[in-house]
Amino acid sequence: MLVVGENINASNKSVGQAIANRDLDFIQDLAKRQEEAGVDFIDVNVGSSHGSWVSPEAAMEWLVQAVQSVTKKPLVIDSDGPEVIRAGLRTYHGDKVMVNSVNAEPDRIQAIGPLASEKGAFLVALAMGQDGIPKTVEERVAACDTIMENLKPMGMREEQVLFDPLMLPVSVDATQAAITLKTIESIKARFPSAKTIIGLSNVSYGLPSRGLVNRAFLMMAAAAGLDAAILNPLDAKAMSYVKAARMLLGKDAACRSYVRAYRAGTLAD
Amino acid sequence: MLVVGENINASNKSVGQAIANRDLDFIQDLAKRQEEAGVDFIDVNVGSSHGSWVSPEAAMEWLVQAVQSVTKKPLVIDSDGPEVIRAGLRTYHGDKVMVNSVNAEPDRIQAIGPLASEKGAFLVALAMGQDGIPKTVEERVAACDTIMENLKPMGMREEQVLFDPLMLPVSVDATQAAITLKTIESIKARFPSAKTIIGLSNVSYGLPSRGLVNRAFLMMAAAAGLDAAILNPLDAKAMSYVKAARMLLGKDAACRSYVRAYRAGTLAD
Repeated sequence: MLVVGENINASNKSVGQAIANRDLDFIQDLAKRQEEAGVDFIDVNVGSSHGSWVSPEAAMEWLVQAVQSVTKKPLVIDSDGPEVIRAGLRTYHGDKVMVNSVNAEPDRIQAIGPLASEKGAFLVALAMGQDGIPKTVEERVAACDTIMENLKPMGMREEQVLFDPLMLPVSVDATQAAITLKTIESIKARFPSAKTIIGLSNVSYGLPSRGLVNRAFLMMAAAAGLDAAILNPLDAKAMSYVKAARMLLGKDAACRSYVRAYRAGTLAD
Repeated sequence: MLVVGENINASNKSVGQAIANRDLDFIQDLAKRQEEAGVDFIDVNVGSSHGSWVSPEAAMEWLVQAVQSVTKKPLVIDSDGPEVIRAGLRTYHGDKVMVNSVNAEPDRIQAIGPLASEKGAFLVALAMGQDGIPKTVEERVAACDTIMENLKPMGMREEQVLFDPLMLPVSVDATQAAITLKTIESIKARFPSAKTIIGLSNVSYGLPSRGLVNRAFLMMAAAAGLDAAILNPLDAKAMSYVKAARMLLGKDAACRSYVRAYRAGTLAD
């Protein structure tokens, strides 16, 4: 299971301030700590406001440069704005990059799909349209169909797409976790070359001991075939469960990484 | 997911000594603490030696009476010896009881099946024959077929059977956890009225931070459809993950039990 580090996101107040204030040390420290924690990708999101920057595009360019100057880990260019994504990709150096995200809305696919295609980027695709998160597995898979049909003429291959099955909080609807797990399985069956990804923390919204719920659900999703998770890699417990999951799913030959993490004192259970 | 408390087992040295020394307080305290921790069944196993008792049968009779005099929780009569199981069931009062276990060996089914049938008991059935744990899903399901074919003429219904898909340590063979998960799914598909059960701790044998591996695997097995687990309910973290799993799988209406456990201070993450 791949880990996308979620921490460099302006929706986190201190990160938003660091971007607004051009606080290089803060941002670069956060990038390095995520790399040390073992992430596979680092997400970068400048949010909608842009502080002292002339535009969010300018903020994204600065952010990509700031992070890439201290880590070789690939980035996830994360924005609601196609122009911000374009600016991030233009500044980005390196072959491996991810764009976050499209959904089944045609306008959004038309704006962002070509950017990902041109760069050969991975692309996160949310299994929803303009009416919000569908209640059923079938509607979510139908949204994935729409997305893939629209992406293919742009030259995007299934291998480049990471479908997000989406997750409503279990506190809102007790049936939702099971629906997300089934959606993962259905997407894997329908798009065998595509990957699945989930933003983990939404599952536990409104509940106490959220980390416990997040980790429990992450293991369930891993068993259902989840390929990647967007999470806080500085949460040592979450990363320990990721390592255990990789081992249990046969992705850690002779348990070497798990035992190495134990010996390094980084396992937290 | 049902929890079977594993603690009253003579293979644990202090429990073995308490049985040998007829230490009622020790045994009854262990029963009460498991009940307080929220178990659904309490397993009792006198092992092969019997200390000061005239026979393991006599020890089992004492143990069943000792536990039943302090808890109304149903018991699991657990023994390799059919005569010990017979003694336990004879002494047992109450309708709901489980026998642990048969496998696909005809002699064992012929000896234990009728005891479970006569008592209307649940019966744990290991997905293996005399040659040990099969390597493949198909062989394990075939063992379940053999067991069910032999049990049916005795009047045992599928609803009474809990199949154990079995678990080899992931440290021995990295593919084994995935095989166990697939076996759970295959058993659920083939025997829709039967339940599945697993002895949790074997998965982590030979590894550090075993609790972490056990809990991670328990969540994966829950997602695959596991109905019951034999585990140490005095491990507050394990029980917390059980509560999270029940909630995530839609078995905890409005998250009530989970939130109640949090408020009672019994959640450990």
